[in-house]
Amino acid sequence: MPPETLTPARILEATEDVLRRYGPAKATVVDVARALGVSHGSVYRHFGSKAALREAVTQRWLDRSHTELSAVADGDGPALPRLKEWLTALFAAKRHKAGDDPELFATYMVLVGENSGVVEQHVETMIGQLARIIESGVASGDLTSANATATARAVWDATNRFHDPAYAAEWSRPGIDEAFEAVCELVTRGLRP
Amino acid sequence: MPPETLTPARILEATEDVLRRYGPAKATVVDVARALGVSHGSVYRHFGSKAALREAVTQRWLDRSHTELSAVADGDGPALPRLKEWLTALFAAKRHKAGDDPELFATYMVLVGENSGVVEQHVETMIGQLARIIESGVASGDLTSANATATARAVWDATNRFHDPAYAAEWSRPGIDEAFEAVCELVTRGLRP
Repeated sequence: MPPETLTPARILEATEDVLRRYGPAKATVVDVARALGVSHGSVYRHFGSKAALREAVTQRWLDRSHTELSAVADGDGPALPRLKEWLTALFAAKRHKAGDDPELFATYMVLVGENSGVVEQHVETMIGQLARIIESGVASGDLTSANATATARAVWDATNRFHDPAYAAEWSRPGIDEAFEAVCELVTRGLRP
Repeated sequence: MPPETLTPARILEATEDVLRRYGPAKATVVDVARALGVSHGSVYRHFGSKAALREAVTQRWLDRSHTELSAVADGDGPALPRLKEWLTALFAAKRHKAGDDPELFATYMVLVGENSGVVEQHVETMIGQLARIIESGVASGDLTSANATATARAVWDATNRFHDPAYAAEWSRPGIDEAFEAVCELVTRGLRP
């Protein structure tokens, strides 16, 4: 059987495994190469440096729920329920990431701290999706906004307790669902024409 | 001249000085006693343990802006502008704490982490003030809320980027005032009848 082709996706998969096993402080490119049965030179042909590899794996982790969310953002139906659906899907995705594999989550918190540019880009993508929902609602007269991107940013900020990983420890506490509902209600009411 | 009477207020003042000088990891009750020129037994007569002293100094720091804010909460005039005035005063007070003396702020962040009960009590006091504004607005028909405390909690959560010390690093960035205005606008619009 010929060896599997070394793709960026396979390298990132292996990097995540290595990070989970050794932790972000100890994981090296040599560990990643060893896990793949290739030389570290082969890894460097795809990712020019350890920093580039860590940045790419962070990006992949942050993007993991983009597809699902963008389907909601670009879906049909009235904008306000769609906005709530999007916020609910975002909160659910974040909770899963934090709760299903807390060690990997802690690892990514370290990486996120190292790669603030990647995080900013991720936030801009999220705000872009919110802005598309708001624009569609303005077009149909379901909601009001003088500037969709500015409003999207306000919605993002106002809901940060339910997506900023700094609050992850609160996401499993009693009362968090009621708190989420109450903020969603306040925010969607604030967008009514 | 007779020695000044040793009061809890004087001990807390000295504790803050000692914390600023030695940092939260190294400051001891003996350091506080030495700064006051008394025995550590005299300090223990007012605060039974080092933990109790640290808790009290944290409480004092958190409460420092309560008076001013409660004057706004219980002031006259229409509720929605008063709500905005309260949120603005809160953000200003937090920014001052973080920006005027960053080392002391960092010290208190350590203490806040140790004294979660004190923090919870502080948050409940803040939410109580918000609830009083909301109740007065419901009474005068200026705003709508089925449950003033639940709504107050939602307003608190929705504005956390502008009062949670976890975001202190963002409070001096360009655009933060516009972000605050946009969230205030969204929240106050959400309370309209």
